[in-house]
Amino acid sequence: MVRNAPKNIKLKTIGVVHSPFHVREDIDPRRNFRPNGFSDVRGELEIDPAYAAGLKDIAGFSHLIVIFAFHKSGLGHLLVKPPFESRRRGVFSTRSPHRPNPIGMTVVRLLGRRGNVLRVSGIDLLEGTPVLDIKPYTSRDSKRGVKHGWMRTSVLNR
Amino acid sequence: MVRNAPKNIKLKTIGVVHSPFHVREDIDPRRNFRPNGFSDVRGELEIDPAYAAGLKDIAGFSHLIVIFAFHKSGLGHLLVKPPFESRRRGVFSTRSPHRPNPIGMTVVRLLGRRGNVLRVSGIDLLEGTPVLDIKPYTSRDSKRGVKHGWMRTSVLNR
Repeated sequence: MVRNAPKNIKLKTIGVVHSPFHVREDIDPRRNFRPNGFSDVRGELEIDPAYAAGLKDIAGFSHLIVIFAFHKSGLGHLLVKPPFESRRRGVFSTRSPHRPNPIGMTVVRLLGRRGNVLRVSGIDLLEGTPVLDIKPYTSRDSKRGVKHGWMRTSVLNR
Repeated sequence: MVRNAPKNIKLKTIGVVHSPFHVREDIDPRRNFRPNGFSDVRGELEIDPAYAAGLKDIAGFSHLIVIFAFHKSGLGHLLVKPPFESRRRGVFSTRSPHRPNPIGMTVVRLLGRRGNVLRVSGIDLLEGTPVLDIKPYTSRDSKRGVKHGWMRTSVLNR
């Protein structure tokens, strides 16, 4: 056991994702291997009105980090088989939804705000995904010289 | 209220951060406004041996996303006063630790792995920070043309 760390953290849903993807099969996993990914997919982040005051000043940012819950994921396995892969990979080297903590992160482009609703593009999430946090994306989050480990040998990159 | 979203999510600590920063005052907030940020700061991510099997295949990735708990943060305010700012900003337009869900995200460079310990650089976290998840950073996470909203007018960028 890791010493002195609090064992459990409780989070609350602050909003919900609206997406054109209603079931998992709607999401084409091949997009994950393309630099443009889901950038053409539009959706909304509907923030609970109780938290909407926290959206002040957000309009000037081009990109947002969305922290969300994988609400449809199964048990948290340590080895997972990514789409199109024959081998099982360590879960922390994948973006699989089936992880010890069912929590995800994606970066979206902010198109506009209307009250407690943010219009965004780059949605790779299911309709109804619970939003846990929104953070401004800054140039510190934009890394160069990224190496992709096992993903570079994926059939999709050949 | 947002409809149909599960209200609470329970997460468990999967590891702990080792950092040269032992108290909040050790972390110079001016680094947040510099593109190089904390890239010269080295530390370790010590993963609980119970989860270490999930680190398989991680070695080939240059950068990792670390999701962590702000374990020293206070109540989650919706308006916060960032360092060096006179005005209060909406919390979702800041990276403040004092947020409705005390959860953070940072991108580190992976230097090496020894068993359940990852050596990394780019540490902007306190010693003892609970780790909740590790994900591979991919070129999809690296955005161009980033606009920084209110941060561009910060005294630190003048």
